[in-house]
Amino acid sequence: MIERPGNPPWGTSGRSPSLTTVANDGKTIRIGLLGCGNVGGALVPLVQRQADAIEARTGLRLDITRVAVRNMSRDRGVTLADGVLTRDAHAVATDPDIDLVVEVIGGIEPARELISAALVAGKPVVTGNKELLANVGAELFATADANGVDLLFEAAVAGGIPLIRPLRESLRGEPVTRVMGILNGTTNYILTKMSEEGAEYGEALAEAQELGYAERDPTADVEGYDAGAKAAIIASIAFGAKVVAGDVYHEGISGVTSADIEVARRLGYVVKLLGIADRDPATGDVAVRVHPSMVPVHHPLASVRESYNAVFVEGDAVGSLMFFGRGAGGAPTASAVLGDVIDAAVNLSKGTHGTIGSFGKATIRAIDETSAEYLVSLDVADQPGVLHAVTGVFAEHGVSIRAAEQEGIGADARLVFITHQAREADVQATVRDLRNLDVVHRFGGFIRVIGA
Amino acid sequence: MIERPGNPPWGTSGRSPSLTTVANDGKTIRIGLLGCGNVGGALVPLVQRQADAIEARTGLRLDITRVAVRNMSRDRGVTLADGVLTRDAHAVATDPDIDLVVEVIGGIEPARELISAALVAGKPVVTGNKELLANVGAELFATADANGVDLLFEAAVAGGIPLIRPLRESLRGEPVTRVMGILNGTTNYILTKMSEEGAEYGEALAEAQELGYAERDPTADVEGYDAGAKAAIIASIAFGAKVVAGDVYHEGISGVTSADIEVARRLGYVVKLLGIADRDPATGDVAVRVHPSMVPVHHPLASVRESYNAVFVEGDAVGSLMFFGRGAGGAPTASAVLGDVIDAAVNLSKGTHGTIGSFGKATIRAIDETSAEYLVSLDVADQPGVLHAVTGVFAEHGVSIRAAEQEGIGADARLVFITHQAREADVQATVRDLRNLDVVHRFGGFIRVIGA
Repeated sequence: MIERPGNPPWGTSGRSPSLTTVANDGKTIRIGLLGCGNVGGALVPLVQRQADAIEARTGLRLDITRVAVRNMSRDRGVTLADGVLTRDAHAVATDPDIDLVVEVIGGIEPARELISAALVAGKPVVTGNKELLANVGAELFATADANGVDLLFEAAVAGGIPLIRPLRESLRGEPVTRVMGILNGTTNYILTKMSEEGAEYGEALAEAQELGYAERDPTADVEGYDAGAKAAIIASIAFGAKVVAGDVYHEGISGVTSADIEVARRLGYVVKLLGIADRDPATGDVAVRVHPSMVPVHHPLASVRESYNAVFVEGDAVGSLMFFGRGAGGAPTASAVLGDVIDAAVNLSKGTHGTIGSFGKATIRAIDETSAEYLVSLDVADQPGVLHAVTGVFAEHGVSIRAAEQEGIGADARLVFITHQAREADVQATVRDLRNLDVVHRFGGFIRVIGA
Repeated sequence: MIERPGNPPWGTSGRSPSLTTVANDGKTIRIGLLGCGNVGGALVPLVQRQADAIEARTGLRLDITRVAVRNMSRDRGVTLADGVLTRDAHAVATDPDIDLVVEVIGGIEPARELISAALVAGKPVVTGNKELLANVGAELFATADANGVDLLFEAAVAGGIPLIRPLRESLRGEPVTRVMGILNGTTNYILTKMSEEGAEYGEALAEAQELGYAERDPTADVEGYDAGAKAAIIASIAFGAKVVAGDVYHEGISGVTSADIEVARRLGYVVKLLGIADRDPATGDVAVRVHPSMVPVHHPLASVRESYNAVFVEGDAVGSLMFFGRGAGGAPTASAVLGDVIDAAVNLSKGTHGTIGSFGKATIRAIDETSAEYLVSLDVADQPGVLHAVTGVFAEHGVSIRAAEQEGIGADARLVFITHQAREADVQATVRDLRNLDVVHRFGGFIRVIGA
């Protein structure tokens, strides 16, 4: 009685005649796929294999009708009917005989232009493009809303892990205070090798490169750019605030040593590269950052090993949640894309669509204004008065010490401190002054500590 | 262009005049709450606190308009306007001035009758009632579909953890092969104490009772009935098959000893009570069972401690996923209810609703026909020929041994075996014969092993 059946919104009259061979029976959803690399190449056989099961559950038949690629002659290991492949992505995006567009090209242009064109033509779009969404997401969501169609992007963050839908829907009424996650599989693999096998950063990176987990130029992964783009998207969805990649502070893992990891282990922590988004409940200010973090060994994020991803959500009512799975790879990402495709297809057949809602303008709090506990390690001359001098620097900047440990190493001593909750700016000032202290022979770095 | 605006489906003419004071402005969703105990008592203040934020995101104002309780005079610590409380649950379920019904009474009757009445009256229903859904879910879903309204139940399984929506929506196209989870917080708390503090079952149970984690009569938790009901619901949703509580094999933790846990630990496993649902991809047969399980220490489920719940999903494309969080408690469960309420409210305002789809008739495979690896431990006379006799029993039933360990204990020896993958019926026959062997002085039990 609530549903309003009527003509399906695709294939209505007034459109140009079909050039494709798919029957427009109101039950077939004709998909235009932009890009057929790692993800697209996994999506095609998955759709083919699951089409019967999906039709049994939803009454809709998914058909990959057009596939736009740059190189027509490359063998993708997928079976496509003659005439499905094309090099004209724009024609696919705007083809009146395509009901739904999937974009898995990546990068900002031409993806932005193609997605906009599809949305304006009234087609729902599914994308896994984190770079695009982290930079111009708000603009694209507005275009989708204005045209009354879905723009879905589960695959853009944490690959196959259902995260965006739970955040958007299940937790819509939840006062979410913090989201933090292991958002990059390459760096988690490297840190796992360093933790479990005592490998140094360089060795572990080389191994990850050999296994194909890391690119030849690993900068985007190891310096936190990839995780930063994902953290921006997560913050936008969790807090309904406009956060772009450029708002995210990031610090990678290339400076993490096996000594840091060993100290962390001894103190009951595991070192992880975390993307952290939190919102001050009082002011609504949002802070988003990516940096190596010491995670208590019993924290659920501590047990996420190898190239797995996980996202930990804290809310006032729900408490702690974690979502764990494969954050990358063709098949897991294709699985997330397919979930979105079915969602968009069902919405299309019902003449409805989801709304992402508007993104408020949030004040972005700079890293300097955030606070955490910090692990600070340094090698000093082993002589009277040194501990006094060092702790004086902390005191001067109002940074209070929660735990300290001293260990002799030849003529030097290694000092390790964990601070109480302190402001980043104060810790940075402390670090600067410590580096200038004569008795400090080596500054071992500092790592932010995540509370249990 | 795809959306079809029109009269909102609630508050239309032809209904009896309003008795309540809420303005029917097409933006207010008037909620009738059935039950105001642990979950209801947490839902009321959560809705009140979040109403502004939800209105900002959705344009809809949630208002708890009627609350049906058994005892009008009990102090629930919630603030409700005069006249909201009533003892007439049926009147709330069918009140034409109620747009949406939330059932948190629990148990089968009168919940079934009230929910049916609300659905027939065209009202979406949100429930957290696992017992009801595990027994008569298919009937209620059919009623909801026939009346074109939502019946949502995220809170019925794993409390605050978003699981049902990801399974129903995100993974709709995924070939899910197995779902297994820690579905009961009480037993996980007890097993955690036994594992980490070496406590015996009785001590750990007593502590759980003192802390209010376990009931005075703990049967439903410790013997696996509670987890079994949840496993039935999970299997139904994951596989689109009709599975009821009575289809689930269950075996509790009351027979697990600290010695079992110690053996498991030594071999690299943690003992967890798991609900396991899997489907044979070849035949479509479904097997659902709850029993203590040995989980490899690096498996994500192994690190789920205390009273937390977690559900691990395996799919051909997506690989491994895990959802972790609070499986019980007023506030987390209320959070899950609120997510569903918002979903149903938005659907109502758009004149649409989700469909759970039909549940096929699956063949339920009995536990005897399932297979796993098994840990078998027994104390035997420490004399020549014993190992030969014992292993002969395994061989006779075609159960192949993967690992064996022998340890002297006084005049006896303790033997521990881990089998290769074996059929349950064969292992049961092996166990029966081992118990009858003269040289076996004590049969220490057997625990099924979960592969890494």
